[in-house]
Amino acid sequence: MDALRILPSIPLASAGPTAGILFALFGVLLAAKLGDELFKRIGQPTLIGEILAGIVIGPSVLGLVDPGETLQVFAELGVVFLLFWVGLETRLSDIREVGGVATRVGVLGMLIPLIAGFGAAKAFGDSFETSLFVGASLVATSVGITSAVLIGLGALKTRVARTILGAAVIDDILAMVFLAIATGIATEGNVDVTSIVVVIAIAVAFVVFVGLGGTRLVARWPRIFHAPRFAQSPLMPAVILCLGLAAVAAEIGLAAIIGAFLAGMIVAETRNRDEFEREVQPLYAFFPPFFFVFIGLSIDVAAFADGSVLAALAGLTVLAIVTKFLGAWIAARPLGRHDALAVGVGMIPRGEVGIIVAGIGATSGVISNDLFAVIVGMSILTTLAAPPLLRRALARGGPAG
Amino acid sequence: MDALRILPSIPLASAGPTAGILFALFGVLLAAKLGDELFKRIGQPTLIGEILAGIVIGPSVLGLVDPGETLQVFAELGVVFLLFWVGLETRLSDIREVGGVATRVGVLGMLIPLIAGFGAAKAFGDSFETSLFVGASLVATSVGITSAVLIGLGALKTRVARTILGAAVIDDILAMVFLAIATGIATEGNVDVTSIVVVIAIAVAFVVFVGLGGTRLVARWPRIFHAPRFAQSPLMPAVILCLGLAAVAAEIGLAAIIGAFLAGMIVAETRNRDEFEREVQPLYAFFPPFFFVFIGLSIDVAAFADGSVLAALAGLTVLAIVTKFLGAWIAARPLGRHDALAVGVGMIPRGEVGIIVAGIGATSGVISNDLFAVIVGMSILTTLAAPPLLRRALARGGPAG
Repeated sequence: MDALRILPSIPLASAGPTAGILFALFGVLLAAKLGDELFKRIGQPTLIGEILAGIVIGPSVLGLVDPGETLQVFAELGVVFLLFWVGLETRLSDIREVGGVATRVGVLGMLIPLIAGFGAAKAFGDSFETSLFVGASLVATSVGITSAVLIGLGALKTRVARTILGAAVIDDILAMVFLAIATGIATEGNVDVTSIVVVIAIAVAFVVFVGLGGTRLVARWPRIFHAPRFAQSPLMPAVILCLGLAAVAAEIGLAAIIGAFLAGMIVAETRNRDEFEREVQPLYAFFPPFFFVFIGLSIDVAAFADGSVLAALAGLTVLAIVTKFLGAWIAARPLGRHDALAVGVGMIPRGEVGIIVAGIGATSGVISNDLFAVIVGMSILTTLAAPPLLRRALARGGPAG
Repeated sequence: MDALRILPSIPLASAGPTAGILFALFGVLLAAKLGDELFKRIGQPTLIGEILAGIVIGPSVLGLVDPGETLQVFAELGVVFLLFWVGLETRLSDIREVGGVATRVGVLGMLIPLIAGFGAAKAFGDSFETSLFVGASLVATSVGITSAVLIGLGALKTRVARTILGAAVIDDILAMVFLAIATGIATEGNVDVTSIVVVIAIAVAFVVFVGLGGTRLVARWPRIFHAPRFAQSPLMPAVILCLGLAAVAAEIGLAAIIGAFLAGMIVAETRNRDEFEREVQPLYAFFPPFFFVFIGLSIDVAAFADGSVLAALAGLTVLAIVTKFLGAWIAARPLGRHDALAVGVGMIPRGEVGIIVAGIGATSGVISNDLFAVIVGMSILTTLAAPPLLRRALARGGPAG
């Protein structure tokens, strides 16, 4: 008889595993807070302080905390709640206003890195499939990092921010399509055009249906989250919507954060948006540090002691920064010099998206261990480079928008 | 070259695992919300609705969500934030006021179930070691359930609530000591008195040092969490303290929730307690549903189809309820008939603590699979039985304290 399927050591009270995971959560939040405070004092972006804190407590330096599966989930929720917050601050009309420019930024900011990455890999003698993955790994901007910097600077409601957010959504759809193409070629040897079209249709339908439909629905019934049946507080229905849309977005192959962003935009249409913001604030304070510290935990600094890796890393990072900046900047020029500069810089961070692409390439056997490491390093370096550059670009441009 | 230790499929963006865990979190919160609303409408304790929602979506019925490791961590954080909240509502002076009665409730509410459980198991032919574990599994009250009911009834600041909270802390220390004794006998054949004394000393030192020292420290510097260095908000330092003390409590063998409760009591001494409560509220809304739904997810209803299991379960459950009630009620009689009744009923739920004890016994080979299932079932049934009984007892007693 196997009566009750309770795991043998259910860690709900005085048992070992509990202490372990609680210490890890405690360590991450404490390190994040210290890194945050330190970087606030020296006037640098606090998220860089949190990433560096992750490096210090991680396996690279002190080895106090390991980037296990549970911390990964908290990191994921961190970027989900970050983009939910960003969505709360964004009105559909804001995005529409910059729609044309954002679309061009997304497309051109995808094409130039893709072609340059593919060409560079080909030139260094990589196979067609491998070159395709290198190109694909340069495509998608991780908007989490840029969003955090924009929030820190109080610039989330500027035209620059709206353009970056709009472009990042388009950019993510395009990255997903290219990933599907690259994976098809790497594993099947060809591309199933029908399935690619279906993938595109589902992604576009999700964004349009949820983005337009959801916001309109809420705009028509602005008290939908305050219905008497949600007596105490409208927070949990909104959080449930956020997690549900994030899950669906991830399920259909988009980044989960796209779903969270759309959920935030939907909730933003309700009458009591301020109340939501106040209530979401603590979740926004609690989860995102896990995202930034986890990036730091995942870095093995010692790996960069190898000369050839360092050279490849430097080359790919420069390529990633220059090509994404160029593509986005050219497309954003109608916004004026200053804003175009800020949009170009804001699109630079690849964050987790480049790592995912490389990981899928590595699983398919198309990306070698060396190349995987270089792509991961590039993703992290673009992430570290963007915040100071963006601060400078926004400072130079003055308040825009 | 193994450059960057990133897990192969880092689930930070468009990858499978992300969608899976996001759907699980979404499903748990949605089910909890539905169960909660339904039970509010029919006038029953909402946490029972959440536990039943867990049974429905869990492997027993629909099989939509599995009680995996990540959900366990969220469940653990759920009860941690629940007790942190309870601590926030509790002043040290409140506990002191009922200190004598609470101590007697803790001791007598431990002794009677221990002796009865040991005797019953012996009478049914179990070995000395096994009987010791059965007795130990009946000892500790899980204060999470009772706390949630008290919060729901707005009765957290009554004398009954304070007595239960104080008794639960003492009770948990005693349970830990008995668990150490039982484990020593089961694995070594004898008890190392020195190590037991050390265990007791550490536990008592932790509770006294943290409880008295921490609250006094904060009472002396009531703005310690509002120091200019924690500019934006005092929430995260308080949450970090909560997780740290919970981890230490778990590490020294106490329940993590004891640490969280003490952390709440410490924070409660600051000047801006209301601010804290408002800021902790969303975390308190987000995490505890995972605790209650997880209990439901862990139940395999089909197991109770077996007649002999059902009989043993019924017997042990009645024994657990009657003996704990008796011990607590006798000790609480100085509080008057009505309050004594409520304290006795409030101490009934064993929740996760009984399951832990049984799990350790099963690992030591002293508790059979059958007996393990029965103890787990007893823990859950006491948990389900307490809320309606406690509501009735409190209603009968009228406002006390």
